[in-house]
Amino acid sequence: MAEEKEKTAANAGTQPDAAGPLPGASQMRDPDDASNALAQVQEIFDKLDDLPEYRKRKEAGEEESEAAPVTPEAAAELKAICDKLHPSDIAWVLEALPLDERLALWNYVKSDRDGEILIEVNDGVRETLIDAMDREELVDAVETLDTDEIADLVPDLPPDVTAEVQETLSLEERSQLRAAMSYPEDSVGSRMDFEMVSVREEATVAAVFAYLRRFEALPDHTDKVFVVDRRGHFKGVLLLAKILVSNPEDTVGKVMKKDTLTLSPLDDVSDAAQAFERYDLVSAAVVDEAGRLVGRLTVDEVVDVIREESEEDAYGAVGLDEDQDIFGSIWETARSRWLWLGVNLCTAMIASRVISAFDGTISKVVALASLMPIVAGMAGNSGNQTLTLLVRSIAMGQVTENNAPDVVKREVLASIINGLLCGVVTGLLVWFLYANSGMGVKLGIVMFLAMLLNILLGAIVGVAVPMLLKALGRDPAMGGSVLLTFITDSGGFLIFLSLATVFFR
Amino acid sequence: MAEEKEKTAANAGTQPDAAGPLPGASQMRDPDDASNALAQVQEIFDKLDDLPEYRKRKEAGEEESEAAPVTPEAAAELKAICDKLHPSDIAWVLEALPLDERLALWNYVKSDRDGEILIEVNDGVRETLIDAMDREELVDAVETLDTDEIADLVPDLPPDVTAEVQETLSLEERSQLRAAMSYPEDSVGSRMDFEMVSVREEATVAAVFAYLRRFEALPDHTDKVFVVDRRGHFKGVLLLAKILVSNPEDTVGKVMKKDTLTLSPLDDVSDAAQAFERYDLVSAAVVDEAGRLVGRLTVDEVVDVIREESEEDAYGAVGLDEDQDIFGSIWETARSRWLWLGVNLCTAMIASRVISAFDGTISKVVALASLMPIVAGMAGNSGNQTLTLLVRSIAMGQVTENNAPDVVKREVLASIINGLLCGVVTGLLVWFLYANSGMGVKLGIVMFLAMLLNILLGAIVGVAVPMLLKALGRDPAMGGSVLLTFITDSGGFLIFLSLATVFFR
Repeated sequence: MAEEKEKTAANAGTQPDAAGPLPGASQMRDPDDASNALAQVQEIFDKLDDLPEYRKRKEAGEEESEAAPVTPEAAAELKAICDKLHPSDIAWVLEALPLDERLALWNYVKSDRDGEILIEVNDGVRETLIDAMDREELVDAVETLDTDEIADLVPDLPPDVTAEVQETLSLEERSQLRAAMSYPEDSVGSRMDFEMVSVREEATVAAVFAYLRRFEALPDHTDKVFVVDRRGHFKGVLLLAKILVSNPEDTVGKVMKKDTLTLSPLDDVSDAAQAFERYDLVSAAVVDEAGRLVGRLTVDEVVDVIREESEEDAYGAVGLDEDQDIFGSIWETARSRWLWLGVNLCTAMIASRVISAFDGTISKVVALASLMPIVAGMAGNSGNQTLTLLVRSIAMGQVTENNAPDVVKREVLASIINGLLCGVVTGLLVWFLYANSGMGVKLGIVMFLAMLLNILLGAIVGVAVPMLLKALGRDPAMGGSVLLTFITDSGGFLIFLSLATVFFR
Repeated sequence: MAEEKEKTAANAGTQPDAAGPLPGASQMRDPDDASNALAQVQEIFDKLDDLPEYRKRKEAGEEESEAAPVTPEAAAELKAICDKLHPSDIAWVLEALPLDERLALWNYVKSDRDGEILIEVNDGVRETLIDAMDREELVDAVETLDTDEIADLVPDLPPDVTAEVQETLSLEERSQLRAAMSYPEDSVGSRMDFEMVSVREEATVAAVFAYLRRFEALPDHTDKVFVVDRRGHFKGVLLLAKILVSNPEDTVGKVMKKDTLTLSPLDDVSDAAQAFERYDLVSAAVVDEAGRLVGRLTVDEVVDVIREESEEDAYGAVGLDEDQDIFGSIWETARSRWLWLGVNLCTAMIASRVISAFDGTISKVVALASLMPIVAGMAGNSGNQTLTLLVRSIAMGQVTENNAPDVVKREVLASIINGLLCGVVTGLLVWFLYANSGMGVKLGIVMFLAMLLNILLGAIVGVAVPMLLKALGRDPAMGGSVLLTFITDSGGFLIFLSLATVFFR
């Protein structure tokens, strides 16, 4: 019995001695560990900078692309700090250091932890670390990792390193690696791991116990074991907490839970994350089309997914990609922003051409030049509120074909209310401001009408853009704001100046 | 021994029969359960709308604020759908329905699940549901909840309901409720729960086993039990996975883990969330100043915190609060945006006054009116990139006093590169566009200088605003973008028109 199950577990890819305790540390951890370590490291480098010989070397020019020089005492201190830290904390500290100090510190990390740290740092920083390692070091670092982690690193590794690592893998691990790399980037398959424990429905709870005892330690985030049949088909889950409280004589089939979330490797990982949130899960089985258990998704990946999505949204809204390295080269920093500036330059030039079409009207009534940005700006702000709300609601799946007309109606009506209000307020203000010039009434009316129409335009675009992008199968969050601001700018200038041309003919 | 531990657990607030299996469901769940149910519910209401007698009633005017009328057959269908769903899915469906349908569906949710659902829905929707319940129903619903959940609901409950619920609590639960409500909103204390299992250091693993067996089911997210001494002082943790693989004769003290993350109830929950992410935790002990175990934080709360922060950031950037109800009343929707529109109106009016100070120059060279928005817009875009990057890096704790000067230097240098580039491109474009007018060269030079200076201004503001807000102890994410855009707009107009005044004197 136990032997049979052992085989099942091996098929599922877990070696009983896979995970071990953390090296080094023995004190309690607290959330400030990483920032305390960062402060200490910065102090060490600051002291080094004060030494005349080091300052000279730094100023000589090699400063950015190579590891900063370090005295033997400082090296010992850096080593001691690293040894005490959790690999994730080291990753965090590395991200917060300028390139030369980052590479210096990287030298003092114990080589058996290199792999774990490479997994934890963001893509921009990872590149700088990999560039500083030779082939030998890289192979050693990557070999320590699980197959799903290797799959994450492969895109950043030199091809010869990947090839060498693959040779060290077992047949089964190689097929896991291929599987993990074959799924699209945002799928569950690309985020799952293979570290699961599975047992048979017919086994008794006592046998499961005996089986689990043979592990050195269970894989991280094992809150449940998966129940499969002889051919690997998924049958249900058995919570560890349930194993502890069940009668040892009962069969797994009797005490297992069947109404559990299962994912397909092709499911969108963002939907899976929402399911984890809703059902408060720690892990979930990933099951292929044929019903076979192929992997598991764990909550730590879900947390990363949610954080990455949030970064992507925030950076995406201003045209940055999410793997920013605040200590990357200045030239790279500048260059990473060109696309965005170029796009915005084009939209600004078009809006500018719209205005220049009304040169005649503006030279007659120069006040228009100072009033037109108000019309454009207010509609942009109001439209961006609608856009943000819609993008979020669509991402959450709560705007459906069925209720979309209702959502549109609401946003348009709300924007008419606010358009009327803003129109009245600004119209009166303008009337008051230009009362002495004799144009106050006309300018006020133009302002009122243009404001109402442009805010309405902003709301329509704010609703339409994400819905269109979704219908086209694109991410509703991307580029919407640029397009919206472009339309409310150009549209605002056009509406306002056209109305003015009519009124001041 | 076991009795003694029983008492410890009771002190920590867990009743052995606290959690039970999910009612109803027996099929496997998948991530689309909620959206499938939403589609079914929408279909049922659509069919009702087609019946002439229901359409008439709806059109008669009571439409929004009361539950939609439902036929007996439809009621049975709605009931069946609700019974099959997980409470979180019902909450999600309720959020996606217009008010009248939401209230109709709410009637068909089994009353013993009301409490759980109220916990899951967002604040805006929760209000509409609570408004539709009478006092009796509310008390019954709230009584089913754990004390930490009751604490979350209290701000939305009528005071008499809160008072009545408190009377039903045990002395210990009342003190937990008081504790949970006494911590500030974004602290670990306000997010922790009391459902933990604790054991003594001197106990054997076998005794822990025997103790755990007496629970009907362990609390959700129990991946570890907490080890305390006689006086409740926290000593370490014992992972369930470790209990399973340990020798039953060993003492807890021998097999427990001491290097574990502990939180203080006053820690910022956002920092705690980052620690959960770094260390891939499922639960962590919350320990007070005296070293006593007072609660635990679990990963499901952390996931919620990260999601809420992301929503807060996205909505905050456009002046919306995070508890938007896309099916709330149109009037409320409009009103929730007034503050933001008002602030932006003020900044736009000031920028407009800056322009009107240069009326004379503009009426001499009307081309300036069409060019000035380019200068303002490009610096706004570029500055917002800097701002976003800084806000994120500060939130992650990676910008410290120590490396701040370096960060500032980098951003300013990158902005000078991009300012020069944008200046040259736009300068040449303008020269070309206005070559025939004889003002091409002068306009091109003004454009170049203004673009460079304003993009530099944008970068300086983009760096300074979040750093200042942080130094003042405010959230660096809030309001930065409005202030930045205000400065790049007004500053852009001022710089561009001043330069033009000098050149075209």
